[in-house]
Amino acid sequence: MRVTILGNNSALPAFGRNPTAQVVSVYGEHILIDCGEGTQVQMQKHGVKWSKLNYIFISHLHGDHYFGLPGLINSMSLLGRQADLHLYAPAPLMPMLQQMLDWADTVLTYKLHFHPLPDGAELLVETDNFKVSCFPVEHRITCHGFLVESKTRGRKLLPAQCRDYEIPRYYYDKLKQGEDYIRKDGTVIPNDWLTTEGPDAKKYAFCADTLFTDSFIQYIQGADTIYHETTYLHNDVEKAKARYHSTPVQAAEVAKMANAKQLLIGHFSSKYRELAPFREEAMTVFPNTLVAIEGNSYDV
Amino acid sequence: MRVTILGNNSALPAFGRNPTAQVVSVYGEHILIDCGEGTQVQMQKHGVKWSKLNYIFISHLHGDHYFGLPGLINSMSLLGRQADLHLYAPAPLMPMLQQMLDWADTVLTYKLHFHPLPDGAELLVETDNFKVSCFPVEHRITCHGFLVESKTRGRKLLPAQCRDYEIPRYYYDKLKQGEDYIRKDGTVIPNDWLTTEGPDAKKYAFCADTLFTDSFIQYIQGADTIYHETTYLHNDVEKAKARYHSTPVQAAEVAKMANAKQLLIGHFSSKYRELAPFREEAMTVFPNTLVAIEGNSYDV
Repeated sequence: MRVTILGNNSALPAFGRNPTAQVVSVYGEHILIDCGEGTQVQMQKHGVKWSKLNYIFISHLHGDHYFGLPGLINSMSLLGRQADLHLYAPAPLMPMLQQMLDWADTVLTYKLHFHPLPDGAELLVETDNFKVSCFPVEHRITCHGFLVESKTRGRKLLPAQCRDYEIPRYYYDKLKQGEDYIRKDGTVIPNDWLTTEGPDAKKYAFCADTLFTDSFIQYIQGADTIYHETTYLHNDVEKAKARYHSTPVQAAEVAKMANAKQLLIGHFSSKYRELAPFREEAMTVFPNTLVAIEGNSYDV
Repeated sequence: MRVTILGNNSALPAFGRNPTAQVVSVYGEHILIDCGEGTQVQMQKHGVKWSKLNYIFISHLHGDHYFGLPGLINSMSLLGRQADLHLYAPAPLMPMLQQMLDWADTVLTYKLHFHPLPDGAELLVETDNFKVSCFPVEHRITCHGFLVESKTRGRKLLPAQCRDYEIPRYYYDKLKQGEDYIRKDGTVIPNDWLTTEGPDAKKYAFCADTLFTDSFIQYIQGADTIYHETTYLHNDVEKAKARYHSTPVQAAEVAKMANAKQLLIGHFSSKYRELAPFREEAMTVFPNTLVAIEGNSYDV
C-alpha cells in the first residue's frame, strides 16, 4: 500500500502547492481521499490513472477539500468512463452535484453511487483487497478521518515453481493459504517450495483537518502510517487551536499515542514557504516523520 | 483595453491548457469573464492582481466556465478582501454559492453582489471607465456573450507642459474636453500644447460557447476585437454543429459579418495538440486572426 500526495497545502494555493488530495493505492487500485481544486490536473501530472480509481472519500465541506470534485466527475464522463464510481461524502454534496449536472444538461456515462457519511465511526466499504472506515475528528465543521486497511492475500505463488512441480490450478488458493501439495503417490511438495511470504495487511489513517485531540486515537491505534495535518508551526499553537488545526508537535503526539510506525504531515498554511521546520518540530516527538510533498509516493 | 487569456481549452484540461477564463483590463481595472477550474492559480501565475478585480461575468453553467468560481470567491475572503465584488451569472448559481459558504460556516469578508443574467440582451453595468452588456448566443444550454466597451476619457494631459504653462488644476477637465486655456491677459495657450490624443473607446465582444449563427451579429457589430470559440477544425464541422460549437472558418465569418478589426479564437478541443491549424483555417476568411494563448495579453 502506498499514498501519493496530490496537494499538501491548506486553504489558499501558494508556492505552487495545491489543496488537499491524495491517492491511496492498494494492489494497483486507487482510492482518492479529498479532492481540492485542480485535483484532476494533478492526477494527470503525476500519472494516476483514472481507470484504476473507483472510490472517492471526502472528509468535509471546506472548499479546499472538494472544489475539484465536480470537474473530476465531469471529465471522467467526457472521457466516456463506464465503470461505476463510489463517492463517500457529507450528505448535502450529492444534491449539489446533481444540480450542477442538471444545469449543464449532462447525463454521466457511468453510474455514480453516492454514499452519505454517517455521523460517527463506521465501516464504509469492504472489497477483496481493502476496507475503508470513517471516524469523527474535531474540526470547525463536521469532519471525518478515514482508515484504509489492505487485506493480506495469503502467501505469494512462485509461478515457475508451480509449473515445474505440475501443481493443478485449482490448488492455487490452498497454496496461498499455506497448505502443502500432496501428490497421488503420497509425495509431499512443501508449501515453501511453491510460495513466498505475501504482503502484510497495512493500515493507513488519514486524520483530515482536526485540532489536537486524543478522541479518535481508538480508531487509528496501530496504524502503519498516520497522515495528520500540521497547518501551523508550534509558535502559532493558539491560532491552530482557535481555527481547529494542529501543529507538528501535536501531530507527532497523536502518532505516538496511536503507536504508529510512520507519520506523514501536510496541509501547510500558505504563510510558510519552507516546509523543513515542520518535520524538525515533529521529529522532536516522533522521529519517523515525513513531510508530504506533492507528486511523491510514500510506502505505508 | 486589453485581454489576458487564462484558459483557452474546452471542457477537458489537456496539454497544460486550462478551461475558459479571461481578464479584460480597462484603465487598470480588471473584468473577469468566465472562471474555469484553476482560474485563481492562473491569475496568480500570470500576475493578475485580485485587488483590481471588481466584476466577474459567467457565460453559462457548463463546468469548464465556472468550476473555479467557488475557489476564487473563497480565497479572496481568506485574504481579507474588503471591496465589493459584483458577479453577473445565470440565476441558479447564487443559491449554490451561498449553500457552499453555509456548509463551510464561512462569512465572506466582503460584500458579494449577485446579478442574475436576464434572458435577452441588456446593459448590465456602466462605470466611469466601461460598460458591459450581455447578448444571447446559441449553445446547448442558455448562454450569453458579453460586450465590453471602454469609454474615452477625452484628451490626455501632458503634466509637464501643464505645469510649465501654470494651468490651474480646476481647468484640467476642460483641457481633456479639448478647450484652449486663456490667460487673464488674453494670451491663448492652444489645447494641443497641453494635451495629446487620448485612448479611443474600444469594443471587445466575447461570444462564449456558440454554434455558428448570425443571430447575435447585431450586438457585436463594429467591435474592435471579437473573441469567438473554435472548438473543432472545419473537417469536424458536423460534430461542431451537433455539439453547439464552431470552427475557425465559422468564427472568421462572424468576424467578417460584424466588421471586426481583429479576431481572437479559443476554446480548443482536447483532441488537438497543435493550435496553428486553427489560425490558418480562420485566416483564409479573416486574415487578422490571433490564437488565444494562455498568459498572453492582446490589445483590443
